[in-house]
Amino acid sequence: MVKIGGRRKDLRALWWEEGTVRAIDQRLLPSKLRIVRIRTCKDMVRAISDMTIRGAPSIGAAGAYGMALAQRRGENLGRAARQLKATRPTAQDLFHAVDLMSSMSHEDLVEAADAYAQRIVDMCHRIGMAGAGLLRQGDRILTHCNAGALATVDYGTALAPIRVAHRQGKDVFVYVDETRPRLQGAKLTAWELANEGIDHAIIADNAAGHYMKNDVDMVIVGADRIAENGDFANKIGTYEKAVLAKENGVPFYVAAPSSTFDLSMKDGTRIPIEERSQNEVLMIDGVRISPAKAKALNPAFDVTPARYVKAFITEKGLLKPRGFSKLAR
Amino acid sequence: MVKIGGRRKDLRALWWEEGTVRAIDQRLLPSKLRIVRIRTCKDMVRAISDMTIRGAPSIGAAGAYGMALAQRRGENLGRAARQLKATRPTAQDLFHAVDLMSSMSHEDLVEAADAYAQRIVDMCHRIGMAGAGLLRQGDRILTHCNAGALATVDYGTALAPIRVAHRQGKDVFVYVDETRPRLQGAKLTAWELANEGIDHAIIADNAAGHYMKNDVDMVIVGADRIAENGDFANKIGTYEKAVLAKENGVPFYVAAPSSTFDLSMKDGTRIPIEERSQNEVLMIDGVRISPAKAKALNPAFDVTPARYVKAFITEKGLLKPRGFSKLAR
Repeated sequence: MVKIGGRRKDLRALWWEEGTVRAIDQRLLPSKLRIVRIRTCKDMVRAISDMTIRGAPSIGAAGAYGMALAQRRGENLGRAARQLKATRPTAQDLFHAVDLMSSMSHEDLVEAADAYAQRIVDMCHRIGMAGAGLLRQGDRILTHCNAGALATVDYGTALAPIRVAHRQGKDVFVYVDETRPRLQGAKLTAWELANEGIDHAIIADNAAGHYMKNDVDMVIVGADRIAENGDFANKIGTYEKAVLAKENGVPFYVAAPSSTFDLSMKDGTRIPIEERSQNEVLMIDGVRISPAKAKALNPAFDVTPARYVKAFITEKGLLKPRGFSKLAR
Repeated sequence: MVKIGGRRKDLRALWWEEGTVRAIDQRLLPSKLRIVRIRTCKDMVRAISDMTIRGAPSIGAAGAYGMALAQRRGENLGRAARQLKATRPTAQDLFHAVDLMSSMSHEDLVEAADAYAQRIVDMCHRIGMAGAGLLRQGDRILTHCNAGALATVDYGTALAPIRVAHRQGKDVFVYVDETRPRLQGAKLTAWELANEGIDHAIIADNAAGHYMKNDVDMVIVGADRIAENGDFANKIGTYEKAVLAKENGVPFYVAAPSSTFDLSMKDGTRIPIEERSQNEVLMIDGVRISPAKAKALNPAFDVTPARYVKAFITEKGLLKPRGFSKLAR
């Protein structure tokens, strides 16, 4: 749900339309809402790599649609799958979605990808319902990065319980970590919350600990990959917020659909961490903020051990962080 | 020590020259090295408020020179002191320096302020000597904000042990927290380290926890005010890094001269925390990075409890965080 020129319009982060994929260009928000058209699998590979489309569940849907585009154009699906999976190494949803499409290659992948995207949205709705009960009137929730509608085709993971609680009439307040280096909090989460009329303030990531001392009632974040034991990868800085939450007795929740769980990964130590361009740190929106020859290190994700997580909010309800394979059986 | 057009030049953050104060405009670094001239106490009030001059010990020296300017122009010193002390509420050095000048108002305050600035530099040298022994060959040190020469007239507090160790021939590596919202790490600390030829990389503040897990050997930060029990205020985000250091068994040091200790403050709970303009969060270098009507919260400092501090590195040597009044007696 977005407001364009004062009118409310239902828009997903990406969808199939007239033989191509349409997607909100998430690099341009909040200053411009531009819909791009993605015509080929190769274009989809680029859109995922350059973060036109981002957020683990949205990347999963993008992977599914990328396979559909390849099938429509009669391209080699094995090669398409390899190229899509080579874009970003951390988010589990991408591998999940592309492998699923590969296994369905005899079917119409446009239909399959549409169904996949719809399943994500349905799971996010159920995450919202499962999580909303955790929020009380007046609660102040801290979130990191963007785990909202943009990240998940629609509705969101971390933001879903907040949306539902707000629609239930609970007044809640959201501390929005700006989430350097790419500022998905300041740019995307703040934009989504404003569209929904949910009260919030942007804070520097450095201020999260300060507010955790007395003001924050709970933390809810999304996830890019969750290992069998409950360790999980998410946007860089998530680990910091989890440690600070524990130190201050603030419950820390991770909201994610089952497509983000990677039960083949015993724990978080082997989740591959994407290192992105130094320029994401050295420059902001094209403006250099560092000395001319400066170097930067730019891990896009970190891994938070399961012991910091109070519960995972999933479409199946709240799960304690332990031995998910048993649950799957 | 700075390089200008390839030439090395010794420059302080501020100094007295020909009846005025000269200061490096710290808002313009690293892209421009501009020396401003401050002619009146009122101009000094503005230079401290707008952070032309920043860093607790440098602010102290600025306060002292502000009193000297007022005296030279025959202004009311009581009023000058009140105006200077109203600029920034957190840094103890400002109050210390202005009160000291007030108590010496029958003397030549230019001489007194020069002597004050020189004492700061001498204390920083001793901090460097006291702290350098903590650093071993190959150590990787994380620092937050800028507690270098710019922040302390010359030489630095947190950076002083690193400078001395480097000059002793130890190869060290510095993780430089970029330090949102004002980016003093990316802009000032990286500039100082490059000038000294000390190996370093800028990281998003969010990545500090990630590197604390396996890579960081110690954390050294400066301080804006240290209470009697060892609780201390420093740049927003310091508390986060202290908690993460403790959680990962990384020693956490605070480097500061005695002018930063406020023994009248029993603990950190009453240290006033400056709230600065929302625009520091909502914009970066004049570029808006958030939705048009977004709100931000922008505390400039946080308070870290003494229990997270392994030792204070002072001009008197290493001090454990406990009951500083006894030491003072």
